Amino acid sequence: MPADTTDIDELIALMARLPGLGPRSARRAVLHLIKKRGQLMSPLADSLARVAATARECLTCGNVSTADTCDICAAEKRRTGQICVVEDVADLWAMERAQVFRGRYHVLGGVLSALDAVGPEELRIPQLIRRVAEEEVSELILALPATVDGQTTAHYIADHLAGVTVTTLAQGVPVGGELDYLDDGTISAALAARKSV
Amino acid sequence: MPADTTDIDELIALMARLPGLGPRSARRAVLHLIKKRGQLMSPLADSLARVAATARECLTCGNVSTADTCDICAAEKRRTGQICVVEDVADLWAMERAQVFRGRYHVLGGVLSALDAVGPEELRIPQLIRRVAEEEVSELILALPATVDGQTTAHYIADHLAGVTVTTLAQGVPVGGELDYLDDGTISAALAARKSV
Repeated sequence: MPADTTDIDELIALMARLPGLGPRSARRAVLHLIKKRGQLMSPLADSLARVAATARECLTCGNVSTADTCDICAAEKRRTGQICVVEDVADLWAMERAQVFRGRYHVLGGVLSALDAVGPEELRIPQLIRRVAEEEVSELILALPATVDGQTTAHYIADHLAGVTVTTLAQGVPVGGELDYLDDGTISAALAARKSV
Repeated sequence: MPADTTDIDELIALMARLPGLGPRSARRAVLHLIKKRGQLMSPLADSLARVAATARECLTCGNVSTADTCDICAAEKRRTGQICVVEDVADLWAMERAQVFRGRYHVLGGVLSALDAVGPEELRIPQLIRRVAEEEVSELILALPATVDGQTTAHYIADHLAGVTVTTLAQGVPVGGELDYLDDGTISAALAARKSV
């Protein structure tokens, strides 16, 4: 029987398409997986198949979930009326890790961009406007990136939701951040928003 | 139905156990996979399951394979009589990418180490000695790491295979390497092995 390693080559090629892995690290990862077939490779294959079969977007907020309503939207303990608007799910996870926000989220799936032809219809902005009209929303917290596109998106949302309090995350020096390593824009924003001690 | 994301969390935890990925890059990879469920996630799950079910060590040389004899040992075109001894499969793959060696391989699965209590029996050294006795081996090329343990292993093999020509890879300046970036050991090895132009 002629032996072939094409299955292994194919696996390396697929792994190399993951963000953060290149051909070299994909090869290393595959060798590691083959060494740990029982403890790691089979569970990973099962887990991937399970998530691939069940993962979807939460119909309310756009978070990834294994059900039509994500656990944040389904949690009765979480405050309604406060919606934190984020660019993507990674930002939602970052907010959750900080464990300071107990309201709901809305994932836009991107930010407006004239250059990339991303308009409000390409994002979950119409759903957000509908949601604000349907739910009793008292505050919309915009946690969007501090880039030109992010701020354009923030202004667009604020303009189209006149009746609601719209706030945005404060800009300033990161906790533990050293001035020497900060860019000019952050320093000038922190200076402009200075507070009395 | 209460939604749960534990499947996704479990997948992230498994991905974070791959070499080269930490918790942050595992999250990024999983989000990327969920976005590309059809094109990447399902094929990756299938590929992992297939390799997990079929991958094994080649009984002759220790290379990873999907059959009992790897494609290098099975290839009739490859020269017999010349065996290149490497520490692990990644080194074998590196040799193969260079496309200059057309003989067979022998993967030790590590190097001798007094510190980690790795003796000849823990490696595929007995198999190598048996192989040299059974096959008509004219040359053993040791492509082992230039570390103390690697060189100890090389000496051990050379001592136990007296009848065969044992060679080792040349040490010197890497092709394209700049002297300024090389360590002292490499420079002194390259100087000692200097050749007339």
